[in-house]
Amino acid sequence: MITAVYPGSFDPCTNGHLDIIIRSSKIFDKLIVAVLSNSGKTPVFSVDERMEFLRIVTKKLPNVEIDSFSGLLAEYTKACGASVIIKGLRAVSDFEYEFQMSLINTKLNPKVETLFMTASTHNMYLSSSLVKEIAVLGGALDGMVPEEIQSSIYDKLRR
Amino acid sequence: MITAVYPGSFDPCTNGHLDIIIRSSKIFDKLIVAVLSNSGKTPVFSVDERMEFLRIVTKKLPNVEIDSFSGLLAEYTKACGASVIIKGLRAVSDFEYEFQMSLINTKLNPKVETLFMTASTHNMYLSSSLVKEIAVLGGALDGMVPEEIQSSIYDKLRR
Amino acid sequence: MITAVYPGSFDPCTNGHLDIIIRSSKIFDKLIVAVLSNSGKTPVFSVDERMEFLRIVTKKLPNVEIDSFSGLLAEYTKACGASVIIKGLRAVSDFEYEFQMSLINTKLNPKVETLFMTASTHNMYLSSSLVKEIAVLGGALDGMVPEEIQSSIYDKLRR
Amino acid sequence: MITAVYPGSFDPCTNGHLDIIIRSSKIFDKLIVAVLSNSGKTPVFSVDERMEFLRIVTKKLPNVEIDSFSGLLAEYTKACGASVIIKGLRAVSDFEYEFQMSLINTKLNPKVETLFMTASTHNMYLSSSLVKEIAVLGGALDGMVPEEIQSSIYDKLRR
Amino acid sequence: MITAVYPGSFDPCTNGHLDIIIRSSKIFDKLIVAVLSNSGKTPVFSVDERMEFLRIVTKKLPNVEIDSFSGLLAEYTKACGASVIIKGLRAVSDFEYEFQMSLINTKLNPKVETLFMTASTHNMYLSSSLVKEIAVLGGALDGMVPEEIQSSIYDKLRR
Amino acid sequence: MITAVYPGSFDPCTNGHLDIIIRSSKIFDKLIVAVLSNSGKTPVFSVDERMEFLRIVTKKLPNVEIDSFSGLLAEYTKACGASVIIKGLRAVSDFEYEFQMSLINTKLNPKVETLFMTASTHNMYLSSSLVKEIAVLGGALDGMVPEEIQSSIYDKLRR
Repeated sequence: MITAVYPGSFDPCTNGHLDIIIRSSKIFDKLIVAVLSNSGKTPVFSVDERMEFLRIVTKKLPNVEIDSFSGLLAEYTKACGASVIIKGLRAVSDFEYEFQMSLINTKLNPKVETLFMTASTHNMYLSSSLVKEIAVLGGALDGMVPEEIQSSIYDKLRR
Repeated sequence: MITAVYPGSFDPCTNGHLDIIIRSSKIFDKLIVAVLSNSGKTPVFSVDERMEFLRIVTKKLPNVEIDSFSGLLAEYTKACGASVIIKGLRAVSDFEYEFQMSLINTKLNPKVETLFMTASTHNMYLSSSLVKEIAVLGGALDGMVPEEIQSSIYDKLRR
Repeated sequence: MITAVYPGSFDPCTNGHLDIIIRSSKIFDKLIVAVLSNSGKTPVFSVDERMEFLRIVTKKLPNVEIDSFSGLLAEYTKACGASVIIKGLRAVSDFEYEFQMSLINTKLNPKVETLFMTASTHNMYLSSSLVKEIAVLGGALDGMVPEEIQSSIYDKLRR
Repeated sequence: MITAVYPGSFDPCTNGHLDIIIRSSKIFDKLIVAVLSNSGKTPVFSVDERMEFLRIVTKKLPNVEIDSFSGLLAEYTKACGASVIIKGLRAVSDFEYEFQMSLINTKLNPKVETLFMTASTHNMYLSSSLVKEIAVLGGALDGMVPEEIQSSIYDKLRR
Repeated sequence: MITAVYPGSFDPCTNGHLDIIIRSSKIFDKLIVAVLSNSGKTPVFSVDERMEFLRIVTKKLPNVEIDSFSGLLAEYTKACGASVIIKGLRAVSDFEYEFQMSLINTKLNPKVETLFMTASTHNMYLSSSLVKEIAVLGGALDGMVPEEIQSSIYDKLRR
Repeated sequence: MITAVYPGSFDPCTNGHLDIIIRSSKIFDKLIVAVLSNSGKTPVFSVDERMEFLRIVTKKLPNVEIDSFSGLLAEYTKACGASVIIKGLRAVSDFEYEFQMSLINTKLNPKVETLFMTASTHNMYLSSSLVKEIAVLGGALDGMVPEEIQSSIYDKLRR
C-alpha cells in the first residue's frame, strides 16, 4: 500500500490544489493532504480553517485524508509512513525551488520520493496569494476556488 | 493495481535511467520500461540491443518489464493499461518539453497521468548522447553506465 | 495607421496561431501574416499550401492579409511599412530565442518593435511539429488545428 | 483608437521605464502610464512624487498621460477604456510572473490584451530597487535614471 | 597578481560556500571572502560570528583572507584592488539575479570581472536559509555545514 | 601560472567571442583559444580559416594563443596544462547546457575548473549562426564581427 502526502500552505486551497488532489487520489492508495502550520509567512486563514476548507472540497474522495504538520516535512513523512510526496508544478520557477526541496527531503528521509504533477492548463495562473489579492479587491473568484468555499473566503477578505 | 510506463530512447540506458527505474519500481505495482522504436533520430543501438541492455541491468527487479513501442505514447499507455507515465527531469529545459508532452498525452488519453521524478544529483550531467560522445572518444564511462553493459557499448562505439 | 507583421513557418497553422492572429487583428489597423519561405528546415507543406490554409482560416478577418517572404524579416518589415512584429510565446524557451531575435531585428530595422503575446492556456501544448507528428501517427487533431483544414492535413500526412 | 496602459510601481522610474514609454507611445494612439498605489511593499516615493517624476520625463511626449490607480488592474483598464496592457521584460523570471498576470488580467477583463516588450540591452540590469540601493550607498546614477530627476532621488535617499 | 573577492552573507557559511572557496583559492593568487554587513535582511549571526566561522573553516588555506564590507560591492573591489568577483551558481534563478548584478558591478567598476562557478552536484540543494530552517527544526546538518561549526549553529538556532 | 582555455567552434568568431577573449586575457597568465575540430555539425569555415580569423583579431593580445583540438575537451586541458576553462554565457539556455558540460569536464579532469563570464549586453544577441544567416541574406555585419574579418565572411557566404 502506497501512501502519498500532498503538503502545502493551502491558504486557501484553490481549484489548482483540488485538481492535484483529485488526480493524485486516483493513483495512490491513500492521499494525505497536509497543511503546513509553521510556515514563516503569516497565513490569512488559521490551520483549522484551511483544514476545514480542504475537508469540504474533498468530502467525496474516500481515500483522501486531511491533516496538519509542523516541523520538517521529511520527519512528517516518516511518521505517517508515506513513501511519496506529491507536488504540483505551474512554472519553471516553481520547478527550481521544488527540485531543491526534493533533494533535501530525500536526504533527510531516503525512503520518500517526490513526484511532480503539472497543473492543468486552465489552472496555471492560479495561486493562493492571487486568490487572496483578487478577493480583497472584490474581483470574481469563479473558476479559481471551489464554489463551496467562495463565500467564506469573501467573508474574511473583502474589505 | 497501478501500472506505470517509463518511456524513452535508452540509446543506451545510463545510470541515470537505471536510477529512475529502481526508484519508480518501489512505488508502482508494475513498471514497464518502453523503448521507443519510431524516433526521428537514427539510434546507434537497435531496439533489440537497447531492450537487451535494459533486461540485463534490471534483472533483479521482479516488477519491471521491458517492452518497445512505436506510434503515440498515449495509445501505447491505453493498450497496456497504464495509468502513469514516469519521466525523469534533469534540468529546466527538460522540464519545459516534458511539460508540453504531458499536456498532450493527457489530452490524447485522459486516463493517464505523467509524474516527474528528479534525477539524483550525481546523475545530473548524464545523458545517452554524452555517454556515446565520450565512448567514441575513448573516455572512461565508470559511474555513467551500469558496469554490465560498458564493454558492449565500447565495442560498438570506440573508434 | 499601424501595420503589424506576424511571421512564422505555419507548417501548418494551428489553433495557437489562429488565436494570436484573431487577438492581434483587434489591436492593429492591419495585420500581415507572413509565411517564411527560406527556412533551413524542409517544410512539409509548400508556401502556397501554407498560405492557402491561412487564407481559409482568416477569411472572416477583414484587416488580415496573408503574404510570404524570404530573406531577413527586418528587411521585409521595411518593405511593407510595418512598425510592429507580433510573436506568440508559449514557454520560457520560446522567450529566450525570441528575445534575441527581437534585439537583432530592431538593430537591423530601428523603426520596428517586437511585441509578444502569450498563448492562451488551452493552446500551450500546441506546435506545428506536434500536430504533424500526431497526424502521421493517426491521432485526433480536434482542438489543435482549425476544422476547415483538418482533412487536408490528414490527406498529406497520414501514413 | 487604441489606448494602452503601462502599469507599475515606478518607485522611482528608471531609464528602463522611460525607454518602454517612448517606444510604446509610437505604437499606440494614447499611452497611460499608471502608478500603482496599493502595492503591498511600502514605496520610498509617494504616489504624487512618482507621478511628478513621470510627468517631468515624459513632458515631450504628447500622447502620454500619467495617472494612478488602486485595486485590480483589470478593473482599471475597463474604466479607462484601454485594450492593451504594456509590460517590459528583462529576464526569464520577469517573464513567468508576467505570464501569469496576463492570464489573470484577460480572465478578469476579456477585452484587454497584454503585450510584452523587451528591455533595451543597455537597460537590462536596471530596476527601481537597484537604483534605490545605489543611491543610498552614494553610487553614480548616470545612465540609470533620467537626468532631470537624479538630484531629487539623491536628496531623498542619500544617507 | 590577481585578487578575487567572494562576497556573500554567509549566514552561516555552508559546505557549498566552502567548496567554492577551496576551488577558487587554487585559481587566484589571493581570495578575499567578504561578508556583507549592510544587507537588508536581518541576519541570524552577527558579522563577527560569520567571519569567525569562515576563519575556522578556511584556516588551512593560506591565500584566503576573511573580511567584511558595507556599501557597494563595486566600491569594495576598488578599495582592495580585486579584479575578479567570484560567485557560485546553483540554479537558473541564481543565474538571472547574478547576471544582472555582474552587469551593474562592471558598470560601477569597469576593472572588475565577475566569474561564475557552478556548485558541486552534492551541494546543489544547500543554502544558508535551508540550513537555518533545518537547524531550528532539529534536523541533521551532516554534509551541509563544515563539522567544526555545527555545534555553534545548533546552539544558536535549535529551539 | 594559470593557463585558461576558451574552447568553441568559432565558425566564425564574433564580437561576442572577442569580448570574452579580451576580458579573460586580463585575468589569466595565458589564454588558449581552442577551435574544436570534431564537432558534429558541419562548419562553414575550415579549422584553418577559423584559426586565421582568431589570429587576426587577437594579434595585439600577447598572452593569447590560438590552437585547435579534437576529442574530449577534458583531455585537451590535461595535455596543455590548463586549470581553467572559460565559457561565455548569453542566456539561461546557454547556462543549462554549459552547467552539464562543466560537471562532466570536472569529472573527467578533476584538476580543471570551468569559469563562466557573462556576455556584454551589446553582444547578447550575437551568435555565429546568426552572423552566418545575416551574411547569407546580405544584411550588415557592423558591430557583430570584428571589422578585419568582415569581408572574408561576406566573400564566403553572400549569395
